[in-house]
Amino acid sequence: MQKNQLFVGTFVHSKSLNQLEYLHDAAIAVDKSGKIVAIELQFYDQKQAAEILYAKLGWDDGDVQVRACEEGQFYFPGFIDTHIHAPQYPNAGIFGSSTLLDWLNKYTFPMEASLAKLPRARRVYGQVVRRTLSHGTTAAAYYATIDVAATNLLADLCLAAGQRAFVGRVCMDRLAPDYYADEGGPDAVLARTRETIDHMRRIDPTGDIVAPILTPRFAPACSDGTMEALGRLARSDDLRVQTHISENVGEIALVRELFPDAADYASVYDGFGLLTPRTVLAHAVHLTEAEAALIHRRGAKVAHCPCSNSALTSGECRVRWLLDRGVGVGLGTDVSGGYAPSVLEAARLACLVSRHLAMPYNAQGDGRRAPADIDDEERARATLSVEEVLHLATRGGAAVLGLEHKVGGFEVGMEWDAQLIGLNMVANDEHDDGNADGTGSVEKSSGGGVGGVGADEGNVDIFGWEKWDERIAKWVYNGDDRNTKMVWVKGRLVHQRPSSTSS
Amino acid sequence: MQKNQLFVGTFVHSKSLNQLEYLHDAAIAVDKSGKIVAIELQFYDQKQAAEILYAKLGWDDGDVQVRACEEGQFYFPGFIDTHIHAPQYPNAGIFGSSTLLDWLNKYTFPMEASLAKLPRARRVYGQVVRRTLSHGTTAAAYYATIDVAATNLLADLCLAAGQRAFVGRVCMDRLAPDYYADEGGPDAVLARTRETIDHMRRIDPTGDIVAPILTPRFAPACSDGTMEALGRLARSDDLRVQTHISENVGEIALVRELFPDAADYASVYDGFGLLTPRTVLAHAVHLTEAEAALIHRRGAKVAHCPCSNSALTSGECRVRWLLDRGVGVGLGTDVSGGYAPSVLEAARLACLVSRHLAMPYNAQGDGRRAPADIDDEERARATLSVEEVLHLATRGGAAVLGLEHKVGGFEVGMEWDAQLIGLNMVANDEHDDGNADGTGSVEKSSGGGVGGVGADEGNVDIFGWEKWDERIAKWVYNGDDRNTKMVWVKGRLVHQRPSSTSS
Repeated sequence: MQKNQLFVGTFVHSKSLNQLEYLHDAAIAVDKSGKIVAIELQFYDQKQAAEILYAKLGWDDGDVQVRACEEGQFYFPGFIDTHIHAPQYPNAGIFGSSTLLDWLNKYTFPMEASLAKLPRARRVYGQVVRRTLSHGTTAAAYYATIDVAATNLLADLCLAAGQRAFVGRVCMDRLAPDYYADEGGPDAVLARTRETIDHMRRIDPTGDIVAPILTPRFAPACSDGTMEALGRLARSDDLRVQTHISENVGEIALVRELFPDAADYASVYDGFGLLTPRTVLAHAVHLTEAEAALIHRRGAKVAHCPCSNSALTSGECRVRWLLDRGVGVGLGTDVSGGYAPSVLEAARLACLVSRHLAMPYNAQGDGRRAPADIDDEERARATLSVEEVLHLATRGGAAVLGLEHKVGGFEVGMEWDAQLIGLNMVANDEHDDGNADGTGSVEKSSGGGVGGVGADEGNVDIFGWEKWDERIAKWVYNGDDRNTKMVWVKGRLVHQRPSSTSS
Repeated sequence: MQKNQLFVGTFVHSKSLNQLEYLHDAAIAVDKSGKIVAIELQFYDQKQAAEILYAKLGWDDGDVQVRACEEGQFYFPGFIDTHIHAPQYPNAGIFGSSTLLDWLNKYTFPMEASLAKLPRARRVYGQVVRRTLSHGTTAAAYYATIDVAATNLLADLCLAAGQRAFVGRVCMDRLAPDYYADEGGPDAVLARTRETIDHMRRIDPTGDIVAPILTPRFAPACSDGTMEALGRLARSDDLRVQTHISENVGEIALVRELFPDAADYASVYDGFGLLTPRTVLAHAVHLTEAEAALIHRRGAKVAHCPCSNSALTSGECRVRWLLDRGVGVGLGTDVSGGYAPSVLEAARLACLVSRHLAMPYNAQGDGRRAPADIDDEERARATLSVEEVLHLATRGGAAVLGLEHKVGGFEVGMEWDAQLIGLNMVANDEHDDGNADGTGSVEKSSGGGVGGVGADEGNVDIFGWEKWDERIAKWVYNGDDRNTKMVWVKGRLVHQRPSSTSS
């Protein structure tokens, strides 16, 4: 059982889509179950916070662990990865110039198939969970493989590490390669899926940390019978569903060919009862107006995976367009279509991809591209701000996974899924008198030292004059796992960098 | 004076635009002046290499420093940053949703003006040089500010740190804000520029490490008189020139308005004698066919800055289109239009931006964008491979800066500008018998350990079954400064991570 905990310092979280809230000199009390039980603003020191709060909460001094931010550090909600393929992690960064359908056959299926060997699965999945935690991912929706035992192992590892995880055995009984097919027909597919569901319910009966999610790979890879069966199970057991939609033009053409009677790609899933308020749809790059409207009506949500969409030349997901239509959006790393296991990288790329959508093409009329037929203002609106992508990375992702009342922000009653962020404070020697020409200083500090390069402080250099929103922007654009000093899930410390001291 | 050096292990460098060469079990001998004097392939151990080479070179055992790669490490040529604004470094990552012209006034000019205070300039420039070295940048073309003393200080710092640098005092005597104007007319502008040229010739008479570069900010910011004077000086002193071209549509419209008689943007520079074989043109996003042809005829080169072009919504530079037209291209970070001081990040983004150029738009015909009027094959050709962006980052950049016979690859007669790259070798416990379900291992290694997360090994996880080209792809997509263990310029060790041992 954990102790009660008091966190003191600066807290930053998303208030609304385009607004971050900054709580300075604040204190958050987290009880033994990991729940936020009090948030107090404007304390000037830890002692005062403790006195007032302990009395109010009936806490005993000796039963509280206190943690205070250091200068420039802040607490931020844990990141939520709404779409990641754990078994593909060893292929991160490897895709050549392939696009979706050839990439699946060349890189993905052989790697996934190889994880039927449990020692290999253990090695790969262990590293995925460690890595994603180190990047601040406190909750993730994982695709596993078709293999029951390896899928169960992934659930075991997430539970042991304390990472919230929805783990899905991949269902794929159509168009699969011989060496990696989900065999035996829909009943067998469903039975194997049930085995993994039962396992997760057994190891985590509350489903608080680990829970199952139904995972039809994508429409072209599932027989009608399997999709029908999964739709029925989703309804009967109120289970989450994750799948892919409209990622790539070749894929969309294939769906049209395989389902000639369906109005569109979204309608294929809808016809099988797989478009529910608990459904996560990865990509959604090329949706039509009719599909967006249907998805909105059904309450399904979208996992936006910008790293993947750029790397696999899939397209640019119109996030603003989706939000305008009332469709909920979170971020996904989509490892290994996406090259990075970091939601922060996904947030950065979400900013950049939105700018590609906003670019004015063909300025010189040289036939490079025809001008878009939407107007400039509409185009400029496509741009996502730092505040907006951080909203998608936390609150947005929480809503996509149905966790919006539990995690994603700092509110009384929510659970403490958080990361402690630290940036590199560049030493201020501007008032030194000696060595005014400064030629010696590079030599001296080259290769390290606290706050210098080479330390574990990462690449975000803070000179001290930046406003808080500028610090956050610097973090989003240049931050990495070195800035994530500690990570908690439900109050439990699940990751800590070796160089960080716990105060 | 340095010792002779013998480097032993794996060497990877660019052979041609789309081909990397891998030299395993090889040895490279570098003499005291920093020059590569021998490259020997297929040694099986260091002792054998030493025996054969020392005899051949007349080297004495006691006068050689030997460095061997560790498992999985390799030597790679230093990166070349063909476009970076040193004074804008503190703004890296800060641009809100601004585009070029408002960004200049809101963020850039105030920051640059503030560096007239030398202690501040020393602090900022010192950090820029440390950071870029730590990312493997062995040569850079720097914009400084209009200030003479601060520009000279930047040159001093580069020389002291041992980073090859072309340092340019920024000329901008038109449309500048009151607080940051290059005053007094063309003669005064030229005199100030000459002061910095003289300083650099004094501190590094050979120009081997630090040399001046003429820097008209961009056409709209320079009077005709100043551009004329700079053009004359470039010719008389055979000086390098750097400027911006065709980055942003608003900028292009402004140029058209300010220079109504010029055929196009490139012709403006050409008219003043500023388009020479020693000219670096940053961005070149929206060039016309006529401009590309003119630039090719003059032998000027392009600094492609993908991070900046995406972040400032400038556009997507058609690198393949430029290469097809015979225009030389290197990579630039363009800090702080670009958010990162890392050429590796620029290489990664060059891959991604090229894929945005290759995307098939408007698959659903929903009016999002009109289909491009170039065919699919042409579009697919836009995609740049990992090999190609690494070529741009090394050989390409060297050619842009006129250093192609000195650096950018490993050849006898070239100088030893190199980085030692190390990736994270994931421990192989696949054959362990105990703990087969693996649930304990995450706990155990969480938070660090050699090769685990949290160590200084970075995010590139190598499982051991990857081919060499796959390791390189992983490095490009997930690498950072943690993978750059040591950096040399002209044989001198100029950066070393604290965790690295020099053998």
